[in-house]
Amino acid sequence: MKVDGIHRRTIWVDADGWSVGIIDQTALPFEFRTRRLTSLEEAAEAITTMAVRGAPLIGVTAAYGMALAMRADATDRAVEAAHDRLLATRPTAVNLRWGLARLREVLSVTPPADRVRRAYAEAAAIAEEDVEVCRAIGRHGMELIRGLHKRNPHRPVNLLTHCNAGWLATVDWGTATAPIYMAHDAGIPVHVWVDETRPRSQGAFLTAWELGHHGVPHTVVADNTGGHLMQHGLVDLAVVGTDRVTARGDVANKIGTYLKALAAHDTGVPFWVALPGSTIDWLLEDGVHGIPIETRGDEEVTEITGRTADGRIERVRIVADGSPVANYGFDVTPARLVTGFITERGLCAASQEGLAGLFPDQAERSARQRVANDA
Amino acid sequence: MKVDGIHRRTIWVDADGWSVGIIDQTALPFEFRTRRLTSLEEAAEAITTMAVRGAPLIGVTAAYGMALAMRADATDRAVEAAHDRLLATRPTAVNLRWGLARLREVLSVTPPADRVRRAYAEAAAIAEEDVEVCRAIGRHGMELIRGLHKRNPHRPVNLLTHCNAGWLATVDWGTATAPIYMAHDAGIPVHVWVDETRPRSQGAFLTAWELGHHGVPHTVVADNTGGHLMQHGLVDLAVVGTDRVTARGDVANKIGTYLKALAAHDTGVPFWVALPGSTIDWLLEDGVHGIPIETRGDEEVTEITGRTADGRIERVRIVADGSPVANYGFDVTPARLVTGFITERGLCAASQEGLAGLFPDQAERSARQRVANDA
Repeated sequence: MKVDGIHRRTIWVDADGWSVGIIDQTALPFEFRTRRLTSLEEAAEAITTMAVRGAPLIGVTAAYGMALAMRADATDRAVEAAHDRLLATRPTAVNLRWGLARLREVLSVTPPADRVRRAYAEAAAIAEEDVEVCRAIGRHGMELIRGLHKRNPHRPVNLLTHCNAGWLATVDWGTATAPIYMAHDAGIPVHVWVDETRPRSQGAFLTAWELGHHGVPHTVVADNTGGHLMQHGLVDLAVVGTDRVTARGDVANKIGTYLKALAAHDTGVPFWVALPGSTIDWLLEDGVHGIPIETRGDEEVTEITGRTADGRIERVRIVADGSPVANYGFDVTPARLVTGFITERGLCAASQEGLAGLFPDQAERSARQRVANDA
Repeated sequence: MKVDGIHRRTIWVDADGWSVGIIDQTALPFEFRTRRLTSLEEAAEAITTMAVRGAPLIGVTAAYGMALAMRADATDRAVEAAHDRLLATRPTAVNLRWGLARLREVLSVTPPADRVRRAYAEAAAIAEEDVEVCRAIGRHGMELIRGLHKRNPHRPVNLLTHCNAGWLATVDWGTATAPIYMAHDAGIPVHVWVDETRPRSQGAFLTAWELGHHGVPHTVVADNTGGHLMQHGLVDLAVVGTDRVTARGDVANKIGTYLKALAAHDTGVPFWVALPGSTIDWLLEDGVHGIPIETRGDEEVTEITGRTADGRIERVRIVADGSPVANYGFDVTPARLVTGFITERGLCAASQEGLAGLFPDQAERSARQRVANDA
């Protein structure tokens, strides 16, 4: 999407034809800074330090990391070493594992002399596929927004989103934001309530920055605010992303999503979750009890980075001294609170039937796998 | 309650017998600083700058402000001028209006020569009454905690609270915190989840500071966290304060309270609201549509004050540049989500019958007033 009026992606191959450009997301929102990755090690470090973040973008960055590794050494041993080095950066990230497995598979059947070219081509293919998936999510989700606009054509459609399921987390478009960007670009008036999303403030730092640069009207609010907004008719549609959806439709997403889903349910506001089919965990039913919730470092709660009035970037403590803190990264929203899913294959109900209806191939494959596991 | 091991109140008459000591709450949690008020103007300024905050404490401070004013000038005209000056500091604060009206009434029937003594006595009486009301709330609420402890005697009772309805908002004990302090002092093991309470962070700044100094085990969490905690059995009881309760039991309180009440309701966690009877607005039924919600300054959302690692206090921007923000101060939790009320007269259901049963005198007075208004 646009940054300072220029269309950007989060990752690209530079004009030299081989080095990989990224947006350094650790500097946002205070500074827009790009960075050039020239080696396996730099790619791994970009993932570890969260210069790139968001499951799809991490997968693509790792794929390009494999390509950079092949430039230095295209032997079988180097393929394995690069795979393992990159996998170790974020061992629990599903897209990372999947992207790396795909590169390893492709390279294993490619002669060493052709591996550099092949790795770049495969990384580019993964990036393009991500863009297409997000674009398809956007197209389907835009119809929801269009429908709401037709009901109230004389005012903007008010959306609410939590965290950053935006283009910065993908290659372009984002997941939850794709319908919003597409509606905005199509001339449907929208306004987005952006949850700050403490403790890491991805809403106030990233989603607000994205929407602002693309020209989408939005308002940042404290995470406590969404219920009040919904009670007073100020939200027409809540739309969020997800890290994992179970086979029956329970949704793991950034901590606090469950609270917004409860408020939407209580006030009759539609609550939709945007996701690529690859996010569905077909082997899990009960998300509340089955999905382990990551706890993260205390300092994300006790400290925050901001900019002083005179332009210095400072990190400050914002919790009383000596008070312990806890930092749960995600929560799980039961399917009963979710109106539906927006996927690259269309919309569906938040249920086993809904998901299996859109993704029968995946559902059947996992059923076979389950039988095999039980045998 | 205790600060550095010494029992403190939020307001007191100094050893000189006339100047009024307060805790400067604007310096918390980074510095514990007391301040000496010696004039009407200093008392008014302490309220305006929020060196004192919390409805009960504001009322007491204003009463002492009247006493300080009488020292300079005890004429009828000075009584009126002091009343008006103090009322203008926070025109919508109910306790402020009530405390000032009480002082004016008392002073109007007191000869000027005796007004200084009388004003100090009345201010002290208001302060003592506040302490007694909070103590009674604590006694009744402690029984809830004791009951939960008996059910699970081998672990602490886990409470969750939002914002600061603590002793810093009153003269001592607090409202929501009174049962917690009393249980803790009685040897019942408790642990309190403290909502950070963005945007003003009263939880992380004030409640955490209070509980820490009094030695009550607690953990600060981002506001997004409470739903997850309740889903996983980590909260036995949620208890919050309130700014206004309608006759049927709708609860206006700090923004975000509604979201926690929804989560408590969804997960079967008891959700109690602690309040002095004076907080009930007998003339209002529907809180969601009847209580106007204050919107506050943008800078509370866009900026935060904290302390750098090397000890400097800095104010930093924490929202993307150019992004608009909105800052709603309160929300309203419908009575149906509230398990019950903890008042100075005991516990009751969150309903017209419950409230009128405990406060028949107030309910009847307001019924008479309503008839008079209609006539």
